[in-house]
Amino acid sequence: MSEIFDFPYRKVVAVAASDAPTPGGGSVSALVGALGVAMTAMVGNLTVGKPKFADVEPQVKEITGAAYFIINKLEKMVSADIAAFGKFMEVYRLPKNTDEEKARREELMQKALKTATDTPVEIARTLLEALVITEKLSKIGNKMAISDAGVAAYICEAAVNAVLLSADINIPMVKDQDYVSKVLAEKASLVTEAKRLKEAAVAVVEERMK
Amino acid sequence: MSEIFDFPYRKVVAVAASDAPTPGGGSVSALVGALGVAMTAMVGNLTVGKPKFADVEPQVKEITGAAYFIINKLEKMVSADIAAFGKFMEVYRLPKNTDEEKARREELMQKALKTATDTPVEIARTLLEALVITEKLSKIGNKMAISDAGVAAYICEAAVNAVLLSADINIPMVKDQDYVSKVLAEKASLVTEAKRLKEAAVAVVEERMK
Repeated sequence: MSEIFDFPYRKVVAVAASDAPTPGGGSVSALVGALGVAMTAMVGNLTVGKPKFADVEPQVKEITGAAYFIINKLEKMVSADIAAFGKFMEVYRLPKNTDEEKARREELMQKALKTATDTPVEIARTLLEALVITEKLSKIGNKMAISDAGVAAYICEAAVNAVLLSADINIPMVKDQDYVSKVLAEKASLVTEAKRLKEAAVAVVEERMK
Repeated sequence: MSEIFDFPYRKVVAVAASDAPTPGGGSVSALVGALGVAMTAMVGNLTVGKPKFADVEPQVKEITGAAYFIINKLEKMVSADIAAFGKFMEVYRLPKNTDEEKARREELMQKALKTATDTPVEIARTLLEALVITEKLSKIGNKMAISDAGVAAYICEAAVNAVLLSADINIPMVKDQDYVSKVLAEKASLVTEAKRLKEAAVAVVEERMK
């Protein structure tokens, strides 16, 4: 399923809608986030090279490059999310007849649960980078296209909240309480920061659209 | 560009990120919304046929069917959004040398502006239907997949807010103030209702994930 970026859009939607286990909510959030940050890249591309925006061109070029970097990273994260789910299911199906098998399975399960938690958190971190550059661009990007920076902000924030639900599923099953506290703290800060950046970007966009 | 659902996912993202005028924020919001409601369909598909959920099967079947209907409608709306933009640009380029040409252009422009406002509002209405069924499904869908109803809720609400920015661009240029008041009122109600439904769905999902 890592070839999902090669599927026609209609097929991506159809496979997501089907009862196939992947792509699940984590991958779909990353796919959606890639389209969100594509809007950031578009605003950047519509700003670079325009004489009116020559004074901000270096920053806009940097932001646009970062947007493409984030899109590529999200594509890789979709594969990682699908792989993490596959690994989890593989471990889930391990035999648990003897005490030894049970202990081995539990050990591998704890490892798989951490990976299946780390992956959505990493996707959320990447989406937060998208919000950081989108908020910057909302202030300096081409006014003619600035509503699309708002589109990027709404979509990327939703993708942060959505992808973290995939972490929420696994966290209650993780036994390592130090790890759990650390992840919960990072999750909370990602959600708060994403909301702040979205609101800041949308406020600027609404002001500049007047 | 109406063949966008046939493009590989990577190409959809690349075209959205480019400086090509379409797909813009309205179409991208609808594309993202289609992936959101695909998650609703998935939760439905993972519920139907399971003996444990036999008592809610008729409702879940109806919700799942409605999700597919919404996906198809959003696909059509992407084409409509792209067509509305094309029409607007066509009118924008009309000559305005004589008073007669100016009057004719202004008349057609007002018409094109209304279509370019109606289309995102219609997409938002469709996404609200997605939120209505997602909120219902959050209460009765398979608990094993219920986090994905939350994913659908986050994504579809963001798509409502995002797509309405495309209406916001055009509204200030519309001269018919009765039309403007009506659209602004509907916009406000769509935003409020989408937020309420998202929050309700996410609250149920979080409760059921415990």
